[in-house]
Amino acid sequence: MQFIQISGRSLLAVFFLTTWGFTLLAATPASDLRVNAGRIEARILQLGTFGANPGGGVSRVAFSAADLQGREYLMALMREAKLEVTVDAAGNIIGHRAGSDPALPPILFGSHSDSVPNGGNYDGQAGVLAAIEVAQVLFENHVVTRHALEVIIFVDEEGGLIGSKSFVGHLSPGVLAEQSHAGVTIAEGIRRLGGDPEHLDHAAHRSGEYAAFLEMHIEQGAVLDSEGIDIGVVTGIVGIDWWDMIVQGMANHAGTTPMDRRQDALIAAAQLVLAVNRIITSEPGAQVGTVGRIRAEPGAPNVIPGRVVASLEIRDLSNARILDLFARIETEALGIARATGTTISFRKSPIHETAAATDGAIRNTIANVARRLGYSSKRMPSGAGHDAQAIASIMPMGMIFVPSVGGISHSPEEFSDSEAVARGANVLLHTILALDGNPRERSLKPEE
Amino acid sequence: MQFIQISGRSLLAVFFLTTWGFTLLAATPASDLRVNAGRIEARILQLGTFGANPGGGVSRVAFSAADLQGREYLMALMREAKLEVTVDAAGNIIGHRAGSDPALPPILFGSHSDSVPNGGNYDGQAGVLAAIEVAQVLFENHVVTRHALEVIIFVDEEGGLIGSKSFVGHLSPGVLAEQSHAGVTIAEGIRRLGGDPEHLDHAAHRSGEYAAFLEMHIEQGAVLDSEGIDIGVVTGIVGIDWWDMIVQGMANHAGTTPMDRRQDALIAAAQLVLAVNRIITSEPGAQVGTVGRIRAEPGAPNVIPGRVVASLEIRDLSNARILDLFARIETEALGIARATGTTISFRKSPIHETAAATDGAIRNTIANVARRLGYSSKRMPSGAGHDAQAIASIMPMGMIFVPSVGGISHSPEEFSDSEAVARGANVLLHTILALDGNPRERSLKPEE
Repeated sequence: MQFIQISGRSLLAVFFLTTWGFTLLAATPASDLRVNAGRIEARILQLGTFGANPGGGVSRVAFSAADLQGREYLMALMREAKLEVTVDAAGNIIGHRAGSDPALPPILFGSHSDSVPNGGNYDGQAGVLAAIEVAQVLFENHVVTRHALEVIIFVDEEGGLIGSKSFVGHLSPGVLAEQSHAGVTIAEGIRRLGGDPEHLDHAAHRSGEYAAFLEMHIEQGAVLDSEGIDIGVVTGIVGIDWWDMIVQGMANHAGTTPMDRRQDALIAAAQLVLAVNRIITSEPGAQVGTVGRIRAEPGAPNVIPGRVVASLEIRDLSNARILDLFARIETEALGIARATGTTISFRKSPIHETAAATDGAIRNTIANVARRLGYSSKRMPSGAGHDAQAIASIMPMGMIFVPSVGGISHSPEEFSDSEAVARGANVLLHTILALDGNPRERSLKPEE
Repeated sequence: MQFIQISGRSLLAVFFLTTWGFTLLAATPASDLRVNAGRIEARILQLGTFGANPGGGVSRVAFSAADLQGREYLMALMREAKLEVTVDAAGNIIGHRAGSDPALPPILFGSHSDSVPNGGNYDGQAGVLAAIEVAQVLFENHVVTRHALEVIIFVDEEGGLIGSKSFVGHLSPGVLAEQSHAGVTIAEGIRRLGGDPEHLDHAAHRSGEYAAFLEMHIEQGAVLDSEGIDIGVVTGIVGIDWWDMIVQGMANHAGTTPMDRRQDALIAAAQLVLAVNRIITSEPGAQVGTVGRIRAEPGAPNVIPGRVVASLEIRDLSNARILDLFARIETEALGIARATGTTISFRKSPIHETAAATDGAIRNTIANVARRLGYSSKRMPSGAGHDAQAIASIMPMGMIFVPSVGGISHSPEEFSDSEAVARGANVLLHTILALDGNPRERSLKPEE
């Protein structure tokens, strides 16, 4: 609905109709603006040359020489799009574009440019180049929005949302001393990028400073690709909790201990693995639960396992629901322990991510924009963490997913088609225009 | 029955009644002969000083300096018992005692004196000192058996039945080049003991050369101890087969892959672990099946396991039954693979031990002797491997188990009470006397 209002207005607005939220110096109606798919693709591939691995893919981990080169390249592109580029105290790159109404808070959008070791060219990077493309298209078409716009390239997303947590003032000070993938501490890395780790508070923002945040990102899953859907309208970013599950039985000689005299920790652990799966899938919803690591001790083929340690990860859009599911697993474990003559305990890992809902009105806007552009869309959670998760603590936030071929991510095989990325960038562009045109209605509309 | 005949006769035989199989120079009737529990215990403890660990237990691995010292000590005891001591080409120590009828083949009995690294004082060693004690008691009571007797101390049992396999000519030549626990090759180790690894054939024997083999050994399990039974009449030594079970699923992001799109190799592996347990316990019998080792790959809490490799061990008194049980597991695995979208394959490990039945008439004799001595007994398989397993290929064989406190073995906590060991040694003594008295009936009698 919002988009249609805006585009309806924009057809009437030919010159300097700043009342309507943007200014057209050229003849193209705002609703007809489209990103340049070939340009985005070429830039993704160019960015991928910094830190490229001989066998394919990229290792442009935060703070590495390749990261510095990639950031220089991106800052040049931002300047080409007439963005005013600064680096904040955390090392985040911010490209500012003035709006027509200085009283309005800026709309923020972007993603991250760092990769995991031996990663691909799309995770984060597609979103960064889509954001720069949006600024470029607005510049080329002489569109001035009411709100200022800021393109942001977050630092070290893969190391734990370092840039976005700093941006909202939530980075734990202890993290600065941790080793990054580049082999230097986070603090030293931030210095390398021109940041100021001693004054991270200078990079921190508060509620009200920004109107909204938008991030386009590859799905990193196979849902959109396998269902042939163009756009994922992200309903929220899941919370994550990790536990260690410890099963204590009795190690014993596998030859001399009859079957009915065993306290086999692996038998109990196998039941527990299946119980986790059964409990997680027993309710409708997007929750996932995974046992990814398991170790039997002492771990010899001829010794009955006396102890098994396995990981448990639960993700859901609600942290409370994660704890509910965990409580059901704990209860089930009691019964398994009783039946197998073992004890089962759970040790909470420090790994905890708070779930972040996207803004209902922004979700509607993204879905409406996609429909208007002729793209299919689907509401879906993000099972992976994103900078948007941190940013959501101080502003309304929305995320746009584009399909990952085969759902492959964090791998040299990671790939998203240039047209798929361009569709995401077009949705990003028109969602920004829609939010810019009607910001006050945004948060008041109930979700469709 | 046999024992009662013998002892009945022995009460009549006071001087040189060699017709009845042994000669009494002293007044003690043969049926009243008993080992000296305190002497056996003292010698076990003395042997345990060679290679004693500061924290308890012993590391007298084959070919180590401690092993050499222990063997010197044992050879001195054997000479004290008036055994004629030789070392064969494999390094086995043999103590010979002439019989009254040179036409009869010797009765062989003994065990091994080496320990596992950080082992205890009873595994093998109790049997060796029981065997020497038997020779000592016969000497002290001037008993001459019809058959010659040979006490044997096998070399490197813990390294893979090296001495006993050599004794029957079954040691694979390649094994000689393998590293022993002592850090030298098996060949070099045998040389250290005075053996001749280039001429192992000199140590090899054939069917008919010996009348029978008897081994007293600690149970290394908890059956006798927990049931309060004195003597285990070993029905056979189990065969052993190992496999690797390989489950191939699809590794994937644990956050972005919905539960219904997973091919989680660990879910399949957990079902497989439980299926192994269910199939093994679905039939009566002494068979055991164990999954002792499991590894999920890549093994991160936030990645769905794409591959799981787990061990499978099955032991039974029949190698054919092991293969039958394995075939049932394979069939079940097919169904699990289909249901979980994975593939499951089995790779045979080279680990294979052929099951060895004990001789039915010797089992009867052991049981009758135990009853006559007032000891409770139970027929039971040996789930662990023993030298007797190799020896069974060339002569009738029997094994006598004594209780292990708590079933603990291969550990400094390994313990068998001195009275329990003495009961086993008494059964060994009187079984030898029984077999000596009536050898021709032995293999003709059906098992009770």
